This record gives sequence, C-alpha cells and structure tokens, in this order.
Amino acid sequence: MYRAPIEEIAFTLKQVCGLGDIQASERHADLGDDLVEAILNEAGRFAAEEIAPMNVVGDREGATFSDGKVKAAPGWRDLYHNWIEGGWNGLTATPDYGGQGLPMMLSAAALEMWNSGSMAFALGPTLTIGAVEALEKHASDALKETYLAKLISGEWMGTMNLTEPQAGSDLNALTAKAERAEDGSYRISGQKIFITYGEHDLTDNIIHLVLARLPDAPAGTRGISLFLVPKFLVNEDGSLGAHNDVRCAGVEHKLGIHASPTCTMVFGDEGGATGYLIGEENRGLACMFTMMNNARLAVGIQGLGIAERAYQEALAYALERKQGRAPGDSGPAMSPIARHPDIKRNLLAMKTRAQAARVLCYACAHAIDMSHIAETGEDRKFWSERAGLLTPLAKALPTDFGVEAASIGVQIHGGMGFIEETGAAQYLRDARIAPIYEGTNGIQAIDLVTRKLPLSGGEHIKAFLSELAGIVEGVAASNLPSLGDIASHLSEALGDLEEATAWIMTAQAEGRMAEALSGATPYLRLAGLTFAGILLAKGAAAADDGNKAARDQRILLARTYTMTLLKEVAGLKADVTGSSGAILAFDPEALAS
Amino acid sequence: MYRAPIEEIAFTLKQVCGLGDIQASERHADLGDDLVEAILNEAGRFAAEEIAPMNVVGDREGATFSDGKVKAAPGWRDLYHNWIEGGWNGLTATPDYGGQGLPMMLSAAALEMWNSGSMAFALGPTLTIGAVEALEKHASDALKETYLAKLISGEWMGTMNLTEPQAGSDLNALTAKAERAEDGSYRISGQKIFITYGEHDLTDNIIHLVLARLPDAPAGTRGISLFLVPKFLVNEDGSLGAHNDVRCAGVEHKLGIHASPTCTMVFGDEGGATGYLIGEENRGLACMFTMMNNARLAVGIQGLGIAERAYQEALAYALERKQGRAPGDSGPAMSPIARHPDIKRNLLAMKTRAQAARVLCYACAHAIDMSHIAETGEDRKFWSERAGLLTPLAKALPTDFGVEAASIGVQIHGGMGFIEETGAAQYLRDARIAPIYEGTNGIQAIDLVTRKLPLSGGEHIKAFLSELAGIVEGVAASNLPSLGDIASHLSEALGDLEEATAWIMTAQAEGRMAEALSGATPYLRLAGLTFAGILLAKGAAAADDGNKAARDQRILLARTYTMTLLKEVAGLKADVTGSSGAILAFDPEALAS
Repeated sequence: MYRAPIEEIAFTLKQVCGLGDIQASERHADLGDDLVEAILNEAGRFAAEEIAPMNVVGDREGATFSDGKVKAAPGWRDLYHNWIEGGWNGLTATPDYGGQGLPMMLSAAALEMWNSGSMAFALGPTLTIGAVEALEKHASDALKETYLAKLISGEWMGTMNLTEPQAGSDLNALTAKAERAEDGSYRISGQKIFITYGEHDLTDNIIHLVLARLPDAPAGTRGISLFLVPKFLVNEDGSLGAHNDVRCAGVEHKLGIHASPTCTMVFGDEGGATGYLIGEENRGLACMFTMMNNARLAVGIQGLGIAERAYQEALAYALERKQGRAPGDSGPAMSPIARHPDIKRNLLAMKTRAQAARVLCYACAHAIDMSHIAETGEDRKFWSERAGLLTPLAKALPTDFGVEAASIGVQIHGGMGFIEETGAAQYLRDARIAPIYEGTNGIQAIDLVTRKLPLSGGEHIKAFLSELAGIVEGVAASNLPSLGDIASHLSEALGDLEEATAWIMTAQAEGRMAEALSGATPYLRLAGLTFAGILLAKGAAAADDGNKAARDQRILLARTYTMTLLKEVAGLKADVTGSSGAILAFDPEALAS
Repeated sequence: MYRAPIEEIAFTLKQVCGLGDIQASERHADLGDDLVEAILNEAGRFAAEEIAPMNVVGDREGATFSDGKVKAAPGWRDLYHNWIEGGWNGLTATPDYGGQGLPMMLSAAALEMWNSGSMAFALGPTLTIGAVEALEKHASDALKETYLAKLISGEWMGTMNLTEPQAGSDLNALTAKAERAEDGSYRISGQKIFITYGEHDLTDNIIHLVLARLPDAPAGTRGISLFLVPKFLVNEDGSLGAHNDVRCAGVEHKLGIHASPTCTMVFGDEGGATGYLIGEENRGLACMFTMMNNARLAVGIQGLGIAERAYQEALAYALERKQGRAPGDSGPAMSPIARHPDIKRNLLAMKTRAQAARVLCYACAHAIDMSHIAETGEDRKFWSERAGLLTPLAKALPTDFGVEAASIGVQIHGGMGFIEETGAAQYLRDARIAPIYEGTNGIQAIDLVTRKLPLSGGEHIKAFLSELAGIVEGVAASNLPSLGDIASHLSEALGDLEEATAWIMTAQAEGRMAEALSGATPYLRLAGLTFAGILLAKGAAAADDGNKAARDQRILLARTYTMTLLKEVAGLKADVTGSSGAILAFDPEALAS
C-alpha cells in the first residue's frame, strides 16, 4: 500500500523550494496552483493505484530473457500502456512534438511518486525522457521529425548506451566504432553492457542512443560521438522497416530492480548497425552531458521515492505489530512497536531521510527550471552553475538515504524484514543500485569538489553559503518557540561547512589534489546534510498554511533532523580536514600477497 | 577467494585482547602459543579451502523444501561431514563428552574464519554449540549421557525453538504447550517459526530445544520451561527409534543465508511430541539466558566474518579493475581503482570496520573466558558483569559493521557489485540478518542501557570507563610519533562517552525511562566506537613484534579509524543527550490515516 504524500510534496515545492518563481515566469504563466494540484493528484493516483500494486510481481517474476528477446513481467505491458495513455511520458517534453512543457519541479514531484510506486517501472520512462532531451537539444530536424513525437508519447522507448566492459566511470577507454556510410548515416559496431531497458516487449520500437568512436577520432573523450540507433529502421512514412543490426545478448541477474532488464547489447555483428549522428562528430560527450544533470537528479529521486515508500510500509507494520509494553503504557496488553522509543527513533530516521532527500531533489529541480526560464545571460549562468552545484548533492545524498532508509525499514520489521514475502527487503535490494549508476556517488563527490566548487572562480559556492546563512537568520528571526535553538545548531553546521569548503579549495589551489579527493565523499555528505537541514528548518519556520497537524509534524521533523542527522556534520568536517594523511598513506598493493 | 588473516587474528588475541590471561590459568595450562597457532592455522585452512568455495553454491541453490523434508545445497552434506571429521564442532565443549575444552577466545577466532568462509554454514554449528552449552549446564545426567557426545561430535545437530508468530522480541506472549506425561517426559505442542536449521539432511537426528508452557505455569516469562525434543526418539542403546511428533511445515524465502534453512516447526499435531525437561519447570528462560551471551557474541562474529571477507573481495577487485588515472600516476594507462583516494577511503572504511568488530568480539570472548576461569566469587562476578556489559556491544556494532562493510563493498565494485554473479551482493544479503536475530540491535541497546549500565549499582561501568582512560594514557605515554595525536582524540571521545553515560543513568535514576530508551541506539554505537578505537590504538601502540609491515598497517588503521569512524562520537553524544524531546513527541498513530 502506498499513499501519495501530496500535501507534503505541494508544501515542499511551494514553501521550501520556490515553485512560485517558476510559476511567475512567462513560460509557465498558465501553471496556476489549481493545475499544479490537479497534476500532483493525478500523478499520485496513478502511482498508488496503477504502479504500486505491480511492484512485487515485477520483483518476483522480473523481466525474462530468451532467444534474444526480453519479456516484461506479467501485467507490465498493460501498466505501461495505461501510463502512456495517461500522457505521463511527455510531462516536461516540448509541446512542439506533443509534450506538455511542464517545469522540472513538477516532473520531479511526479517522478518521486512513480518511483515510490515502483523504481523498476519509473526507470524506463526516465531513460526515454533522457533520450528526448538529447534529441530536443542536439538532433537534426529530420531526426526530430521521425523520432521525437513517438518517444514523447511513449509509443517508443529510448535507451542510453555508454558503458563497455572496460569503460565505466572512465569513458576515455570507450571502443565502440562508428564508420561513415555513403548515405550520410553511420555503421555502428561494438558491445555495450548494463543497458537499462535495452530490449523488451513494452513497445514496438526501441531507440538507442549510442556513444561510439569514428576511425579518425582523437583519443579520449574528445573523440566520442553520439548516434541514434533504432531497433527497427523507420520508413519514410513512419512505419517500421527492417530489424537493425543490434541484438540483446543477455540480461543480468541482479540484486534488485528485477523488472528492469539490464542488457548486454551487441551492435554490428552483421556488418554494422545503421546509426544517425546526433549533434556534431566527436562532440558526443557534450551532448550526453546536457542531459546528465537531469538524469542524475532523476536517480536521486529514485532514492527519495524508495525512502518514502519504505517509510510508509515500516510505519504501517510498526502500528500493527505488537511486542512488549512501551514506557507509559499500562495494562497487560502488548503495545504496537511504534510506541517504543527506539522504534520511534527508527521511524523518524526514515522519515527525516525521505524529507531531506525531497528538499534536495526539488531544490535541484528548481535550479534547472530557473536556468531554463532565465531571461539574461547572467541569470542563465548563475542558475546553470547552481544546478551544477546541486546536482551531485541531489544525486548522492538521496540515493544514500534511500539505501539507509530501506535498511532501517528492514530492521523495523525484525525477522519478518528478512523474509522476501514481506516486501521490506525488496526496497533495500532495489535502492542499492541508485548510489552506483549514473556516476557512482564517489564520482559525484569528485565532481562536486573538482568541477563545482571552482565554478566562477569559487564565487558561486561562496554566494551559496551566504544565501544559506540568510535562511538560517530567517529561521532564527521567526522566533518560533517550538523550533527551540534549531537555528544555532544550523549556524554551527554551516560554520563547519564553510571551514571544510575552505580546506578543500585551498588544497586544490595548492595542487594537493589527492588530499582534496580523499575528503570528497565526507565533504559531499557534510554539504548535503547542512543544506537539507537548513531547508527543512525553512519549511518548519514557514508561515502557517492552515494545517496545524502538518505544521507540527514539519517542526518535529526539523528538530529531530537537527539533533540526529545534522549532528554528523562536525565529525565529517574533522574527517574531511584531518584524515587525508592516513588515507593516502594506505598502500593497497602492499596487501595483495 | 578467502585468505585467513591468521597473523592479524593472533596479534589481536594476544596483544590486544588478553589471551595471555587465559593461557596463564590452570584450566588452560596446556594451551601454549604453538597450540594456539596450530589451531588457528588449521581452522583458517578449513575456512579457506573447504568452506569458502561452497558459499556461492549455498546461495544459488540454497536449502530446498519438499514434502516436509529439507535438502541441503549440493555438496553441503560432504562439507558438513568433513567438518565433523575435523573435530571442529566440539572446540569449546566439555572434554567429559569428547569436546576439546578450549577457551571461547580461540573458538571466537575460529568462528570468525568459518563465517568468512560462509555465514550460512557456520550458523548451523553455532546453534548446535548453543544447545550443547544449555545441556552441559542444565540437563540431567541421563539427558547428557544420551545426547551430549553426539551433539559435541556433530553427529547430530541442535536447534533453538523460541519464536512464535506473536512472540518474537517479547517472549511473554509465548503459547507453545507442554503437558506432563506419566513416564516423566512431556508432550509438547505448538508452532515455532524462524527455526534455523530446524530440518535438514545433514545429520540423522536433530535435537530441538523448545520453550513451552506447562498448564499450571504462571503467566509471562516466569512460566516458560525448556524441553529437549529429538526429531527421532533415541532407544536405550543409543540407536534411533520412532519419528517424534514434530515436522517442518515449510522454509522461508529469505533475502540471504539461503543455504541455512529457516523453518516453521509444528510440534504435536498427532497428540504431542515427546520432550524432556531441561533444568527446572518454569525456569526455562533462565536456562536460555545462560547461553544467550555466547549466542549473541557468535552473531557479532558473523558480522566480523562478513566484514573481513567482503573487504578482501573488494580489495582484490579494486587492485584488478582499472579506471581513470589516480593523482600522482602518470602516463596514458588507467590506474587500478585501488589507487584512487576515494576508493582507498572506502577500502579503509571496510577494513577499519572489520578490525573494530574483531577487537570488540575478542574482548567479549576474553571476558566470558575470564568468568569461567575465575577462582574467587568476586572475580567471577566481575567478569560475568564485564561479559554482560560487552555482549550488546559485541553483538550490535559488529553486525552493523558487517552490513555497512558489505554495502561499501558493493559500492567499490560499481555496476558489477549489483550483479549477483560477482558475489559482493551476497555478502550484503547475508549480513543483513545479523543485526536482527538473537535480539535485534535495538534490543541490544535497551539491554545495555537498562540492564548493563546499572550492574553493581553503576560501579561496573564506572570501573570500565576508568580502565579505558588508563589504556588511553598508555597510548599517550607510548609517545610513538607515527601515532600522532591519536590519544587526544581518544580522550575526547571517552569524555563524550562519560557524559552520555551520565546522562542516560541520570535519566533512568529519575524515572525518565522513555528518554533514556530513546537514546539507547546511538549510546550503544557511541560506547562501542569509543571502546573499539581505544583497543585499536592499544594494538597500534603495542611493542614491535618483529613484523614492521604489519605494525605500520595497524598504526595506519588506528589513525584512519580515529579520524573517520571515531569522529561520529561527538555527534552521537549530542544525539543521545539532545534528541529525546523531539523523538518522544512523535506520534506515529496520528499519521495512520
């Protein structure tokens, strides 16, 4: 059972993360509060009523491979067709080809709910939307005409083909080949692995975006081009033609997201798959990067969705299951375990993670939207940098929180949590991929430290930290007695963040790169925990919106977060600034005997 | 591939955790260093060569149920028979019935390696050894004569039957029935769930220890008796007689430890299973409690074993897998990922957890051994209390570390970590049960706070904290330059532990029980992290034993631990002493709409 937390989502969008800024723009002038609410309600209904009930069968039956073909889990084809009939696939896509042109914030909120429904399901459309973005921005008009409308409607699905056995985090090592053909198309060959939804029977065609190298391309990532390779070639009238020279050689047997087929794709076994260049030759990685921010945010939202769903299930179980007598309860009867202080702590540990993940993801979506609606170059630069800065935070922390929350959920279920029928274990298994794909969380931390802190010569992060100080001042000024001394704890954390930031930037400036990198992971967590804590407090201090119970709940969550998760911050600062000596002295090769 | 870390284990036993105290006792006068080493080497060889290679098939094929019978995974019957032929089952058992009477410290070390080999395998003998202990201490001579020798040799295996659907953490609710029969035996009936190795084909007989209630028993846990219920009745000449009225109704489909069958056991469907009273009527829980400490330590050792194994596999992968160029490396070639600072951090995060788990488990085993060899009542009381105090630390923290290390191991493997064939995911799936069974880690924290801190009117914990301060002084006095200012960080952590302890004890003394309980889980982690850190530093500061590389490694680990894991302590203290207000104000029932 999943209940879409519409009220909390709407509040976070509007009162915490600035949806109003987007609604005030010319581009989204039609997006009134009523429409926002209607979309959230419908997306939540679809998540709760249509997707969520299919999550378990997707896990148990999974997508199955046989003879080069992949069959979706029972019922999933119908689910997908209900999905596209609802028009959900094109939420953010351009109206020029049938999309709804809604802002990222709204699609982030919807995507949260769909991932709560089923991460393995929501993943497919996420990839299609990524392909849509790449085509919208970089493809020729001819390619757009042929492919965009059907990808936006969801009649066809899209994939991203980057990884090869020897080229994962490091795409320099990519070897897939592209050769120019006489008709202006290309012949693609090579093997790609870990291709999500690379093959399946949900749609009649599958549009692969493939990174490959031309024969005369420079070495490294500057010699990579992006190609569109359809499973079935498309005739001039739009009908499907011959099967392209691409096949699925197998699917992986994975820890989780069993309904999402993870395929090994072989291109060009029979002479070369027909591919069409997207953008310019050798500029493929740049094309991929334009959609990377959005894809990384989408993965962060998976963590958020799982954390929320796991929390709801654990809460329901803890209210139902009775063991022992909680302090303050009297009589011979056992108490629901939700009344025991240690279980309350665990439930709150899940809930604070879900809500912290939510503010991080929505704040990142806000920055992306702001960059889209910016009317001046200066504004666009500012908000692009902001989106860049927040993306690693919105990818890594929510995905870690997803795993942590799911694991706590298993623990709350006790012995039942280890039994697959209960469902709690599935969330943990599913969640575990999110810190890995779309750039591991370690890569996110390196990105934050080496690419994002130096933006605008270090001025952007400085401005960000001042903004945060301003929000903390606002929280302090709210003088809400129920918030206690939350502002002083936040100030302390912000001080630690400033100190850790200065340490890392100094290390980089002085060329002590290994030192900066050895602290990257705790630095990312420190930054994310602090930012999320400040946003939670902002929400808690926001003016009463008429729902006292919800407000009390927000205040309670902000207070709990401040005294639990936020209290990691001082230790993380000590780690960032003090552990590099020992870490770098570690010589793993000496241990391999 | 698993390599038994014999040298590290031997060093930890001797230089850190006090094996010498045990060797100096009269009871273990024969246990010279040579014998210790020979046993460790042989146990490690068995773990690496015999058990470890069977771990994957145990996971893939698992134990299977059909028609009331459970079949072990392919090859597991042979493995088990090699095990008992090696004489491993009776390591700590009494020599009166064929055991070897070795101290717990040595069996803890061996058990670590067997769990590194396969947690699902080591679990079976762990339960048998628990049954042996209960019989040694509480059973009549007649029962001992009939059952002990065969349980000690491993010819038969033992089980513990506590849990019922409504009675898990809270055994008050237990309803299985026992009725007195005319021949002095009892007729047992009722259903038990989650019975590990409740049914299988590894041995010809299975000896169930079952908690049940007599018709005239008082309510609650004071009305529970312990019975021995053999699967096959045993004739006077020791041969097997009729099948007892007990059957396996099914096995659970679990997240991990697939080779360990988790059974639903039904007693007395045909009138009552024949059972024999162990100890006195209505004193069954006391009988169980005598072996609870050891069983909890054994589960802690599972966490340790998994952390070590997962570390070794992640290290091997990180040395093999090449991506990107590490800072300081030159040339066009990719570096092994183990050379990247962030991966070094992750490897050390695993290794520090394994070693911290090791010192906690061995220190607890030392206390248990000391209580056994104590020659005065005062000594016995002191060491029993010490074992009691350390048991929740040795159960909870190592099992949490097992999950954390296994999860980091998955992360180091990147996308491959999510693929089941790699093996990294199995460690995470297996490890996840250990924080749950044998008393959830939440229950351990409650035990620590409500039963262990108050021992000897609070004097025991006070003495323990002074001892720790003494060790820290010793570390400071060692003046080892390579240890840096480790002692001052440890002093700080110890100060936080003292403060948190005082806060919790005051809350309890003033009857603010819910407040004390709401901080129990972070308090346990705080105490365990500090204690482990001090022991790691003790080992690092210990006199050179001639192996410079190993010593450097210990110093490096202690330094890393101090600046990473130990840095959680200050935040945990703030949490323990500052979060109860918000946590207790949380009303989960208000959220169930």
